[in-house]
Amino acid sequence: MIEIEARKEAASRAARLDAVFAALADPTRRAIIERLSRSEARVTEVAEPFPMSLNAVSKHIRVLEASGVVERRRIGREHILSINTRSLNEVDDWIERTRRYWEKRLDAMEVLLRELKRDHKSGSKDRKHGSR
Amino acid sequence: MIEIEARKEAASRAARLDAVFAALADPTRRAIIERLSRSEARVTEVAEPFPMSLNAVSKHIRVLEASGVVERRRIGREHILSINTRSLNEVDDWIERTRRYWEKRLDAMEVLLRELKRDHKSGSKDRKHGSR
Repeated sequence: MIEIEARKEAASRAARLDAVFAALADPTRRAIIERLSRSEARVTEVAEPFPMSLNAVSKHIRVLEASGVVERRRIGREHILSINTRSLNEVDDWIERTRRYWEKRLDAMEVLLRELKRDHKSGSKDRKHGSR
Repeated sequence: MIEIEARKEAASRAARLDAVFAALADPTRRAIIERLSRSEARVTEVAEPFPMSLNAVSKHIRVLEASGVVERRRIGREHILSINTRSLNEVDDWIERTRRYWEKRLDAMEVLLRELKRDHKSGSKDRKHGSR
């Protein structure tokens, strides 16, 4: 039973990542997230800087809401949008995890490069010394 | 001229981010990246663990190549796949930049919470003390 639960959890996490990555694959939606990462805002405030209709921006906002990245709450007539940081953290966790491996490899390459440089320098010093 | 170049650069960066995020919006493609982040590998090695045809995995690999996340080089008959870390770094930069804002807000919330807890604790101690 525990294994089934763990699998369900992994499957729903994968589905959330699918939705968030797909939501981020658009420059207008990324710009909306950048705006909301500074502060929460009303729909009309979010839409204002974009050279498109309020309806077009609203469609992008709905994609962001469906992915879980953006949340909407109503205060009277106003619709306030904010970022759900948890969803972006999941994306960040995935990238961090993948990143850790290749950074180890990059670190190893850096050490190798430094050693090669040092060898090269001491080699060129020796040559200079020899030419004197 | 410099402004035009800067705009072109921003537009192509946005297009690259679109492609990379879209490429990451699939669990099989993310699993391929996780595999390649550990070490480069032949196409057949990458395909092996997946319960789908080599042809189906190849399609996912082509999407990853088109997005720039995965690179392929040929050594004789072998096709070796590896990760292009630069493309994932651009994604990571974008998330980091967006993250910095909300983390500042989360930090401020944490400080507030800690203060509230402290006030609450010292309040309950006072009550205990008083009941003795």
